[in-house]
Amino acid sequence: MSTQSQVPDPDTTREGRTSPDATPSTALLLDLYELTMADSYLLEGMADDPATFSLFARSLPPGWGYLVAAGLDDCLTWLERLRFSAADLAAVGRLGDFSPAFLDWLGQLRFQGRVRAVPEGTIVFPGEPILELDGPLGIAQLAETYLLNQVTLQTGLATEAARCRHAAMGRPVVDFALRRAPGVDAGMKVSRCSRLVGLAGTSNVAGADLYGLPASGTMAHSFVQAHDDELTAFRRFAAAFREKTLLLVDTYDTSRGLDNAIQVAKEMRQQGVELHGIRIDSGDLAELSRMARRRLDEAGFPSLIIFVSGGLDEHRIHQLLAQESAPIDGFGVGTTLGAAGGVPTLETVYKLVLHGDRPVRKTSTGKETWPGAKQVHRRSDWSGDLLCLAAERPPEPGAHPLVEAVMAGGRRTKAGRRTLSAAHLHFEGQWDQLPPDLKRLQAPPPYPVTPSADLKRLTEVVDLTLAAAAP
Amino acid sequence: MSTQSQVPDPDTTREGRTSPDATPSTALLLDLYELTMADSYLLEGMADDPATFSLFARSLPPGWGYLVAAGLDDCLTWLERLRFSAADLAAVGRLGDFSPAFLDWLGQLRFQGRVRAVPEGTIVFPGEPILELDGPLGIAQLAETYLLNQVTLQTGLATEAARCRHAAMGRPVVDFALRRAPGVDAGMKVSRCSRLVGLAGTSNVAGADLYGLPASGTMAHSFVQAHDDELTAFRRFAAAFREKTLLLVDTYDTSRGLDNAIQVAKEMRQQGVELHGIRIDSGDLAELSRMARRRLDEAGFPSLIIFVSGGLDEHRIHQLLAQESAPIDGFGVGTTLGAAGGVPTLETVYKLVLHGDRPVRKTSTGKETWPGAKQVHRRSDWSGDLLCLAAERPPEPGAHPLVEAVMAGGRRTKAGRRTLSAAHLHFEGQWDQLPPDLKRLQAPPPYPVTPSADLKRLTEVVDLTLAAAAP
Repeated sequence: MSTQSQVPDPDTTREGRTSPDATPSTALLLDLYELTMADSYLLEGMADDPATFSLFARSLPPGWGYLVAAGLDDCLTWLERLRFSAADLAAVGRLGDFSPAFLDWLGQLRFQGRVRAVPEGTIVFPGEPILELDGPLGIAQLAETYLLNQVTLQTGLATEAARCRHAAMGRPVVDFALRRAPGVDAGMKVSRCSRLVGLAGTSNVAGADLYGLPASGTMAHSFVQAHDDELTAFRRFAAAFREKTLLLVDTYDTSRGLDNAIQVAKEMRQQGVELHGIRIDSGDLAELSRMARRRLDEAGFPSLIIFVSGGLDEHRIHQLLAQESAPIDGFGVGTTLGAAGGVPTLETVYKLVLHGDRPVRKTSTGKETWPGAKQVHRRSDWSGDLLCLAAERPPEPGAHPLVEAVMAGGRRTKAGRRTLSAAHLHFEGQWDQLPPDLKRLQAPPPYPVTPSADLKRLTEVVDLTLAAAAP
Repeated sequence: MSTQSQVPDPDTTREGRTSPDATPSTALLLDLYELTMADSYLLEGMADDPATFSLFARSLPPGWGYLVAAGLDDCLTWLERLRFSAADLAAVGRLGDFSPAFLDWLGQLRFQGRVRAVPEGTIVFPGEPILELDGPLGIAQLAETYLLNQVTLQTGLATEAARCRHAAMGRPVVDFALRRAPGVDAGMKVSRCSRLVGLAGTSNVAGADLYGLPASGTMAHSFVQAHDDELTAFRRFAAAFREKTLLLVDTYDTSRGLDNAIQVAKEMRQQGVELHGIRIDSGDLAELSRMARRRLDEAGFPSLIIFVSGGLDEHRIHQLLAQESAPIDGFGVGTTLGAAGGVPTLETVYKLVLHGDRPVRKTSTGKETWPGAKQVHRRSDWSGDLLCLAAERPPEPGAHPLVEAVMAGGRRTKAGRRTLSAAHLHFEGQWDQLPPDLKRLQAPPPYPVTPSADLKRLTEVVDLTLAAAAP
C-alpha cells in the first residue's frame, strides 16, 4: 500500500489529519442544503422574511414515557456566535456553486432573532415544542442542523440518565460512559446530562471539571494484572487511597477476589482505616452480590459497600433490585448512558410553521405537522397538556405555560442565562411531580397532549388554503 | 424556578455554560481511575515499568461479518499532544485526592512510547489487535479512555458505512447524518469514515471541507412550504441551481409533486437545461420510485435521477434494490450512519497483555484475554487469520502481517503519517478481496481467527503461573 511521507503540518492539511482539539468551524456545522436554500431565498428576495421554526420530537422511543428537554444552552451559544469567517466563506465557495452576492450576505449575517423554549430539565412529550426560533427565513434555516444535533443528543441522553436514576431506586448511579460514548462531544454531554438529572457522579475527569459533578473511579483489571498477585495489588492500592478504596474483585475469580478484599479490609482496620467497598464488573451480579454481602457481613464489614458495573442498563438495574433483591449499593453505567439506551435516535424535527404571517404545515404521509408558533399549557395535576398557539390566552385556569423567551434580539434573556445548577433544580421539581406511571421503564401509559380548539381551527384553514392553491 | 442573572463570562464559568468550539482539554479526556491507578503505580515505583496494552473488539454486533478499523489517526494525535497544563493539574487536584508528587509527575509526562497498529481501512475480526501500545505503565494506562472512545466510534461508523455501500450495489450513498449523529464529534467522524470507505458524498459542510468529500444537498420541505405553492418553489429553486437541481417532491402529495417536477423539467428543457432529478423522503419508496420512473420516462426524462432518503438503513436499501427492484439511483442515509446501525456500541477493550517481561491475561468469566504483544497474519486467499505473538516468525508462507509500527519514541513513523486518501485506497484494496459471504448483511459466516501454537503455549504458562501464585 502506498504511503505519503511528505505530509504538511498536521493542523493545516485538509486531507483528514485531525486533532481532538481542532474543532471544526462552528458556522460550517450545517447541511449543504441549508446554504442552497438560503441562496435561493436571497435571490428571491425572501431571505429576510420573518419565519418561525418549531423543534419537537415526533414520537417517543418504545418503552419511554416522557422526555427530559436538554441541549438549549449549546443551541443559544451557537446562535450567539454564528458568523462565517473568511476561511469559512472560502470553504463554502469551494464546496458549492454559490453566487458572490450570497457569499457576501453570508459573511455579514448575525443572528438577531428570538428563541422561545422550555427550560432545560423540563419534562416534555411528543409534538410539544422544545424550542422555537423566530428570525429571518434565511438565517433560521441555517440553524436547523446544529439545533437538531444538540437537542436530539442531549434530550436523549438526559432522558436515558433519568430512566437509570429511576431504576436505581435512590441508589447512586455513576456515569462510566466516556470510553463507550460515540465520540468526545457525546462523552462530555453524558456528564452534562447526568448533572442535569441528578446522577451521583462521573468517571469523566473533563466532564466532572466542566459540569461540576463529583469525579468517581478507582481501579481497573489491568491494575490487578500489573501486580504479581491480586492480594498485593489490593494492599498497594489501599495504601495509596485508604478510606476511599474500592477494590475490583473479579479480575481472576470473584470468590477468591472477595477473600483478598476481606483480608485487606481486616489489615486496614488494624490500622484504623475502613475499606470503602468492592466492585464487581462481570458474572451474575445478583448471585455474586448476595454472596459478597453475606461474607462481608460475616467478616464484620456490614457497612462496606457493593458497587456493580458491566453492561448495565435501566432494565437490568430494575431487575437486580426489584426482582432479584440484590444487595447492591451503587451502579456504574457506561454504554447505555452514552448511547441513550441503544434506542434509535430520537426522531426530532425542525419544521417551518410560520412564514411572514402565513401559518404553514407539512402534510407528507406520516409526517404531518401543526402550523403556527406554539405554547404548551400543563395542568398542575399532570392530567394532560394543551398544545396551543403562542398568541392564545391561557385556555384553562390552573394550567401554566412551559415555553418562555430565552433569546431576544440575538441576546439571551434572563431565562436564557440559567446555569446548569439551576436547570438541575428545575428538573428536580418536575421529577417530583411526574406521575409514577409515566416513569415506568416499560409500557408507560400515553400522556394526553390535546391540541386547542384554535390550533385545530387554524390547521383546517391551512389545509383549505393548500387545497385551493393546488394546480 | 430560580434563575441566576449574574452569570460570569460564558466561556469561563465552570457551571456548565459551554460553547460548540470550547473543546475540553485533551489531557482531561480520561476516566478518573486512570489517574488513581497511575498515582498508585508512581507510589509503588512501577509507573515507568514497560507495559503493552492491546486494543481489540471482543465480538461482532449481530449480523456483522467484519470490522473496518478506523480512528488511529486521532489516537496518535492525542498521544503526540498529551500534556497536562497548569489548569489541567489544578482540575485534577480539585477532583481527586492526589499526592503533590503525582501532580508533578503528571505535569512533566510526555508520551515517548511506541504504537503498533493495523492501517486505518483494514478489515479486522474479533480478537485481533486494532492497536497495541508499548510504553511506561503509568502513561499507557492514561491513554485507555480516549483510545477506546475514538477507535470504537470510528470503527463502528466505518463498518456501518461499508455495509450501506455494499447494500447499495454500486449506487451512490450520501452521508445525511450530521443532524441525527450523537453530537458534533460523531457527526464529523461519520463524514471522515464515509470518505474512508468510499461513500459518494456528505451533507455536512464542515465534514466535506475537512475530509475532502463532495458536499451534497439541495432542498428541504421547509423550502416548499415557504412558497405559496410547490410549483413556484420548484421554479425558483431551478432558476438558482439549474442543472444541479434535485426537487423534493413529497412535501404535500408525492404524485402531485411529481407532476410539478415534470412541469419544471419541461420548462427547463425549453431553456436548454436538464433537471438533475427528484428526491422522495417518505412513503413506500419502492412503489413511489416505480411510479416516478414510469411517469418520468413517459414524459421524456429517462435520465432524470430518483434519489431517496428517510429512515433508510442497509437492510432497507438491500430490500429496495434486491427484492423490490426499485428503480432508485441514489440513497441519503442519516440516523443509521450516525448511530452505526443502532447496534449496541461495539465491545472494544484495552487490556494489559505484557508488564515488564511478564505476559499477563484477564480470566474474568466471559472476558478472557490472550497474553503478550501480538501480530496478525492473514492468508492471501482470506481463508483465515493467525493470531500470533509479535515476536513470532511468520508462521506460514503466503500469509502477510497486518500490524505495523505507526509511532516510535512518541513520534509518528512513515506508516503513522498516512493521509485519509491513502487510507481510503488501502480500504479499497481490502474491500475488493473480502470474500462476498463476509459482506452479507445478515448471518455472515464466522471468519476463522486461529491462535498460533506459541500463543496457546504462552497462555497455558500464564495460567499455571497464576494458579501457582494464588493464596
